[in-house]
Amino acid sequence: MSGQLKNDRLIRALRRQDVDCTPVWIMRQAGRYLPEYRATRERAGDFLTLCQTPELACEVTLQPLERFDLDAAILFSDILTIPDAMGLGLTLHEGEGPRFARPVRSVTEVAALGVPDPERDLGYVMDAIRLIRHELAGRVPLIGFSGSPWTLATYMVEGQGSRDFARIKSMLYNEPSAVRQLLRVLSESVSIYLTAQAQAGAQALMIFDTWGGVLGHAEYRHFSLDPMEQIVEYLRSDPVASQLPLIVFTKGGGQWLARIAAIGCDALGCDWTTSLREARRQVQDQVALQGNLDPAILYASPERIRSGVADVLEDFGPGPGHIFNLGHGVTPGVDPDHVKVLVDAVHEFSRTKR
Amino acid sequence: MSGQLKNDRLIRALRRQDVDCTPVWIMRQAGRYLPEYRATRERAGDFLTLCQTPELACEVTLQPLERFDLDAAILFSDILTIPDAMGLGLTLHEGEGPRFARPVRSVTEVAALGVPDPERDLGYVMDAIRLIRHELAGRVPLIGFSGSPWTLATYMVEGQGSRDFARIKSMLYNEPSAVRQLLRVLSESVSIYLTAQAQAGAQALMIFDTWGGVLGHAEYRHFSLDPMEQIVEYLRSDPVASQLPLIVFTKGGGQWLARIAAIGCDALGCDWTTSLREARRQVQDQVALQGNLDPAILYASPERIRSGVADVLEDFGPGPGHIFNLGHGVTPGVDPDHVKVLVDAVHEFSRTKR
Repeated sequence: MSGQLKNDRLIRALRRQDVDCTPVWIMRQAGRYLPEYRATRERAGDFLTLCQTPELACEVTLQPLERFDLDAAILFSDILTIPDAMGLGLTLHEGEGPRFARPVRSVTEVAALGVPDPERDLGYVMDAIRLIRHELAGRVPLIGFSGSPWTLATYMVEGQGSRDFARIKSMLYNEPSAVRQLLRVLSESVSIYLTAQAQAGAQALMIFDTWGGVLGHAEYRHFSLDPMEQIVEYLRSDPVASQLPLIVFTKGGGQWLARIAAIGCDALGCDWTTSLREARRQVQDQVALQGNLDPAILYASPERIRSGVADVLEDFGPGPGHIFNLGHGVTPGVDPDHVKVLVDAVHEFSRTKR
Repeated sequence: MSGQLKNDRLIRALRRQDVDCTPVWIMRQAGRYLPEYRATRERAGDFLTLCQTPELACEVTLQPLERFDLDAAILFSDILTIPDAMGLGLTLHEGEGPRFARPVRSVTEVAALGVPDPERDLGYVMDAIRLIRHELAGRVPLIGFSGSPWTLATYMVEGQGSRDFARIKSMLYNEPSAVRQLLRVLSESVSIYLTAQAQAGAQALMIFDTWGGVLGHAEYRHFSLDPMEQIVEYLRSDPVASQLPLIVFTKGGGQWLARIAAIGCDALGCDWTTSLREARRQVQDQVALQGNLDPAILYASPERIRSGVADVLEDFGPGPGHIFNLGHGVTPGVDPDHVKVLVDAVHEFSRTKR
């Protein structure tokens, strides 16, 4: 698939092949900081309608590519589409985060969960991917994604975002078999979902393990990493999905990079607490690294943003296998012109370096 | 001072000396999960009055020692006493976290800050320490503490708790010299404050760097660790404070333990994302380690709590230099009987191990 691409820097870097300059994309690059996004969002009425209407999802996916010289598009969607398709009743209201009308709190409720069929239950995602691929016309690759099983489980059990994750952790410590069963259903669902995204046209895949970092070091292995490893195995056995590079990003997982690399993914996301130099040493350059500028630097001056970009490139050092990104999503209050400064600086500085 | 102690396990373990069993205390051991605390808190009227009335602060400090076989008392106080003494107008309302009426947002406001005099401006803390020492009568050592300069700075600039720390990070990236100036005043204030606590009778000291973990790896060095190193140097030069073991705890700082150990403290706090075995390897047993059970395990059954305790002791392994604790404060919803299970299990299992 990447053969048809006019710009295949992302795919090459994910495979640790040489590139003319470091590819860059930005988590939540299609988002509230863009006035054109806010306009489409307003037209959609609410966030879920925006996600579930392929034409609108396509429109906002492409918006940042019109402004910035980005090396990838990422499907505009929500990480909670799977639990929504499972019937938990997702609502997303600006400012208060996601909520489920029917959270999952008992063994019985876990046992009642079914694996969504991607084309039947999440057809809007597959349609959006096909439409975006058509509209992109090979300009840059399209990244498909899913939340990790553990991350989906936290929202499904808590019913909403959480500070201390008391409910799911109580369940984890008191009824580990119920949590394991929930994670099994989710691993299977995410595996099938990502495979369907690959078949619909996604050219790289990413698993967002947003909440893996709240687990103890031993629990992380059992309740977040093992389920992700099962997904990797599933994807590797699919003729289409196995051709796509896979990025795994555990926010707050900087202490566990060697363990994450060992599950067989192609690249690791790193947040800004991790030195990329140190990360390379830990993973012995067996995987590519994606990241990792502090998103808050986008509140600073263009000069400061440029020096921040230079620092990250310098920290990664020479050699292939770096995909530039923030260490987390771009925040709503950021000036879009600052994002342009960042993107251009990545290309400018990394081209000079070579 | 530790010579007068009937139970000096904490002091010995902090110095990496042999102990008959692993000492244990719990962050926020005097707190809302205890009905007797809630009763005193109600009598006080509000949280700040509770902190600022030595008799009441003494009362709640001692409460958990009546229930549990703890090896240390920790001064009941708030980490934001210093900025309050600087005149920022602290209010603490249950459920919504701390707020400052007059946050610090400009170079001029930073320049106007003075270093509080501990006996004059924070006399209630010193009085509480003297009273607690008298009441303890050598039963266990008393830990004094302060927030780290960076942690105090985040609250002072944000004006309250924060999710993304946009204000202080904007300041950090745009006006680093203003933040450095703020941190200088805070380093000096914390140094003098902790020294005064030592002189008033604290027998060990701890710096809570609650928000160091939100910084980038390079910024952590400059904006959190360097100011703490200045405090260590100050304390080491004081004839009284230099006799006290010092614990430094950066929550989320598991990737930086070797760097933290190098500033010259005696012990590092570890949160539950860090393996103590791995931490010992990183710091090459040059410092003691404190931690690190996930506080959420206290929602589990007594059996599960006991196996969690066994896992942490096993993870640390043989040899001196372990102080058992949670990886963060005990949460309000916890059953006090579960805390007893934890404390007793630490002593029971670690005694057998020896």
